[in-house]
Amino acid sequence: MSEPLEELLGALSRLPGIGRRSAERIAFFLLAKPGEGKRLAEALAGLDRIGRCPQCGNFASDGLCSICRDPKRDGATLCVVARPWEIPHLERTGEYRGRYHVLGGLVSPSQDIGPEDLAVAGLVERVKAEGVREVILALEPKLEGDLTAMHLLRVLKPLGIAVSQLAHGIPVGRDLESADELTLGRALKGRTPL
Amino acid sequence: MSEPLEELLGALSRLPGIGRRSAERIAFFLLAKPGEGKRLAEALAGLDRIGRCPQCGNFASDGLCSICRDPKRDGATLCVVARPWEIPHLERTGEYRGRYHVLGGLVSPSQDIGPEDLAVAGLVERVKAEGVREVILALEPKLEGDLTAMHLLRVLKPLGIAVSQLAHGIPVGRDLESADELTLGRALKGRTPL
Repeated sequence: MSEPLEELLGALSRLPGIGRRSAERIAFFLLAKPGEGKRLAEALAGLDRIGRCPQCGNFASDGLCSICRDPKRDGATLCVVARPWEIPHLERTGEYRGRYHVLGGLVSPSQDIGPEDLAVAGLVERVKAEGVREVILALEPKLEGDLTAMHLLRVLKPLGIAVSQLAHGIPVGRDLESADELTLGRALKGRTPL
Repeated sequence: MSEPLEELLGALSRLPGIGRRSAERIAFFLLAKPGEGKRLAEALAGLDRIGRCPQCGNFASDGLCSICRDPKRDGATLCVVARPWEIPHLERTGEYRGRYHVLGGLVSPSQDIGPEDLAVAGLVERVKAEGVREVILALEPKLEGDLTAMHLLRVLKPLGIAVSQLAHGIPVGRDLESADELTLGRALKGRTPL
């Protein structure tokens, strides 16, 4: 095996979900279709341009993200997630037309992460400034998600808005990403007021 | 979603075995670990340097491939494959210590590919020049592989060398019932004395 091919196989094998055999399949595909390799390399070069939306914390490259920029999204509803990569999963349900707010993590006593380490102040500011009437908490139904939800409920309730959480459609103890669109969609529709 | 992120997801989704969800998982991993993205981009840049071994047709970057360069490989045995990406699968068995010869395809009447379109003349030359005593045909046990094997047998036999092919049979650890009739028939024909 040639050295550049070994390097490519090594780099591909480090990606999540890609074993040695998948890496070979991809490498030989790229060798057969050089245009695809160029396309991927160019897309990777664009990684540097991906930053965060200054409003919600979603991935964005130029100022606001596409959701915050979209005037058709309902600004009166905010869905709170821990990480930006949870947003595409919720978007795929097609059930949600509001905006998002990314906390940047969850309260975790064991990792010494408190509410002050998360984008909670920004959330409160947005609720006040953007005329938000409902905040939906889409946090994982485990200890850290529950602790975070408890804290958010405490700071949001005094603002006189509705606070809800995703319905228990998500299998308990599983990640948000593992739920299929239907389950996630039902969890959104059947969100329970807190 | 930001435009460069969409481009990255698009490029990743075009790879074999990578769906939209796997693409997201990989993209978010690369966003979290920029060093991995750089490593992959550099490896992709090396694709241009991957050519073919002038002796056997395997992937190689500088002259001979690593197998043809290895003095410990047995030069008296050649294993014939249709494509270079079949070599790693055979290498992984750990059972083979000879060298390889890549045909570049298989005889296919429907696609108008004849023996003259394949590296058959090079194979005959190698057998004569390199003191080859056995050629093992590792071609797929379907019409095109069988046609190719028939032709190779015709040109190799007059050279007075042994020509063999991979044994067909029941995959190790599988039930008799799981084998199709054709495989079972070939397993019967090629039964090994105990």
